[in-house]
Amino acid sequence: MPSKALLRSGQALRAALGVDGAKQAVTGTIDSAAVLRRRDSFTSHWKDDGQVRWLERQHIDLARGKGRLAGERRVTVTPQDGPEFTLSARHAVAVCTGSRASIPPIPGIESAQAWTSREATSAQAVPRRFVIIGGGVVACEMADAWRTLGSEEVTLVVREDRILGNTEDFAGEAVRASFEQRGISVLFKKRTDRVTRAASGEVSLDVADLDGSNQMTIIGDQLLVATGRAPRTDEIGLDTVGLRPGAWLSVDDSCRVEGGGDWLYAAGDLNHRALLTHMGKYQARACGDAIVARVRGELTGDPSPWSAYAATADHAAVPQVVFTDPEVSAVGLTHAGAVAAGLRVRAVDYEIGDVSGAGLIADGYTGHARMIVDEDRKVIVGMTFTGPGVGDLIHAATVAVVGEVPLDRLWHAVPSYPTVSEIWLRLLETYGL
Amino acid sequence: MPSKALLRSGQALRAALGVDGAKQAVTGTIDSAAVLRRRDSFTSHWKDDGQVRWLERQHIDLARGKGRLAGERRVTVTPQDGPEFTLSARHAVAVCTGSRASIPPIPGIESAQAWTSREATSAQAVPRRFVIIGGGVVACEMADAWRTLGSEEVTLVVREDRILGNTEDFAGEAVRASFEQRGISVLFKKRTDRVTRAASGEVSLDVADLDGSNQMTIIGDQLLVATGRAPRTDEIGLDTVGLRPGAWLSVDDSCRVEGGGDWLYAAGDLNHRALLTHMGKYQARACGDAIVARVRGELTGDPSPWSAYAATADHAAVPQVVFTDPEVSAVGLTHAGAVAAGLRVRAVDYEIGDVSGAGLIADGYTGHARMIVDEDRKVIVGMTFTGPGVGDLIHAATVAVVGEVPLDRLWHAVPSYPTVSEIWLRLLETYGL
Repeated sequence: MPSKALLRSGQALRAALGVDGAKQAVTGTIDSAAVLRRRDSFTSHWKDDGQVRWLERQHIDLARGKGRLAGERRVTVTPQDGPEFTLSARHAVAVCTGSRASIPPIPGIESAQAWTSREATSAQAVPRRFVIIGGGVVACEMADAWRTLGSEEVTLVVREDRILGNTEDFAGEAVRASFEQRGISVLFKKRTDRVTRAASGEVSLDVADLDGSNQMTIIGDQLLVATGRAPRTDEIGLDTVGLRPGAWLSVDDSCRVEGGGDWLYAAGDLNHRALLTHMGKYQARACGDAIVARVRGELTGDPSPWSAYAATADHAAVPQVVFTDPEVSAVGLTHAGAVAAGLRVRAVDYEIGDVSGAGLIADGYTGHARMIVDEDRKVIVGMTFTGPGVGDLIHAATVAVVGEVPLDRLWHAVPSYPTVSEIWLRLLETYGL
Repeated sequence: MPSKALLRSGQALRAALGVDGAKQAVTGTIDSAAVLRRRDSFTSHWKDDGQVRWLERQHIDLARGKGRLAGERRVTVTPQDGPEFTLSARHAVAVCTGSRASIPPIPGIESAQAWTSREATSAQAVPRRFVIIGGGVVACEMADAWRTLGSEEVTLVVREDRILGNTEDFAGEAVRASFEQRGISVLFKKRTDRVTRAASGEVSLDVADLDGSNQMTIIGDQLLVATGRAPRTDEIGLDTVGLRPGAWLSVDDSCRVEGGGDWLYAAGDLNHRALLTHMGKYQARACGDAIVARVRGELTGDPSPWSAYAATADHAAVPQVVFTDPEVSAVGLTHAGAVAAGLRVRAVDYEIGDVSGAGLIADGYTGHARMIVDEDRKVIVGMTFTGPGVGDLIHAATVAVVGEVPLDRLWHAVPSYPTVSEIWLRLLETYGL
């Protein structure tokens, strides 16, 4: 929520600036202070009262404190104030402690007062010079947000030769090109050898090519480290049940922990299946239903794929939206991922800007779509969109992938003229059924 | 295209005004002249050169002129200049003459220089006082467009007790409420008894309740008549093949005209199946494929439902987007329509504004979703959304309806957090599978 809230105002403003007749009305600039206030309102000023009320309505007890496993079906809770106590579960314990930013072992980084995603999304002031280590979703969204909100210099230092590495190549390239145009620098194939924070608050990074050549120094007022995630499993007593603290927890499709007996479940980031809020919620639904079904004897052994007790979509139908400008939305497999999985696939490409409805949305609309078709089953196994506003386009693809709707039936799913959804018609035409 | 082009700039501007931090940058007003110029560019200044080039690339011959049937498989063409000639079809003739505005028999209307949809979307000046007879899609979109572009008074005169009569009740009501707030008047259950155009250009309407009481006069500078459509079949020689000129042409699912022999087809508005551009294009694909398949002997008799030769979606999966503010998008059956069709259905309602992603899109987002579930087949047979930007939300529902994806599978189609598409999660939760 907070990252999207930081990004939305700029997105709305650019959308208006992209349409003749509307752009003439936009004579001012974004009000960064208002955006930060708006962001705070969406995060309920970082309080959880709303969630607590929801728990109460559902008659779910809340025990506040640090929890850790204490052997089979037992959890010890250490409250901030008051004595420690232990809960015993009749049936199951679900661990949902999530993940945290993983800090790479760069000399000086611990004392650099670097932001992680948490601080970057909750900050109350705009850094003038903003340096980011990393090129994934967090790095890109935060670069976009703070540049829009007023950062004069934004620099991404990326080890790989591209950004948004888990998406189709063209998606990372579209965001990179937009960044270049908007004054956000991206340095590829660079390592960071040292971080130094001066008393003035200034941060300097010693950066070089991966082989150590071409050393340079990058100066900023704030550093964000966004190089990946680590599981929050180091202080939850995994050792008391024979598991290794600090490791990701492997689970089956009902989210039951492998090697954790028949009572330990893990839903969310820490099972490393799909590190996304919506997939964590999805896993939690399957996990909760599986626990109850096993207690009732309605589920024995492994759950059937696509049943209510299995998080089957984790394998082949994970949607993700990157709220940069352009947006990136994707579900299922990339072309490379499908090939690596041994599928016989065909990639179908189309420029979204050539769809009538897209030209109406924005003058000179630029965007791209790629559909991955499983040629043996004649179903869609992947879709990626880039372009303004494509975030809500992807769900139609998710329904098609999950529903395994055959291509010849999809021809009958007529998109409305003139919406951007007519990209579906063009992709099917290009496939040439 | 032209109506959407008239509406888009206002929509983009309102979207920016709806987001704190962005709205502060909008200090001017819409540039109507720029909007009209932009509209003209989208309609290629009302020339068809682009389409003609496409025909050439496809090696399709174009005969320009007035065409009319001249007996079986024969079409006589009367060019604007040059002599009349006759074409003979080896296999089939497809009639695609579309529809035109139907003008109700109101005294004085013929001499009122009233606009139809054609003039309303192509006009070059903003009428100060704009009066509309009708309450359907054309009436509502044009009221919205010209009010946004500067009309000071806009009044709809509607016979029914609601607008957008083919949609769920709440959709018409949402648009009406928005119109009221934005200074567009809607008069319900009114008949127009006479239209008078003064030498000054001023138009006056004598209006009354349906029983003739409560007579009043409405004055405007321009009148739009948008009370429905009539088929363009009166001057195409239908009499030469035993059909009635001026009637809608009944067709089977391959668009073959009933009572027209085995060679006459009709695709688009004039077959009265679904009067929408995208459905006409859809019918044309089925029709063209069916003609070829019959010639090749690959299709005999009626086509199978959902095959490439049948416009099956016409019956149960017609999507439509109304580009008013709020937008309305819908596919399949309304609740009333499903009940009338004898289905055992359940309607599931949810406020879109309660979805996190919607609140991010616009402060105080207001919108509504209704899902119609066939309780016997456990599939979605209808969906309606209202709210800003819901036009591209509907395609996911179209895929679900056409793909007949069971509800318990749809749970695995996870919407991305925090997009507006999370309305799907809420609808499924509310259904309570």
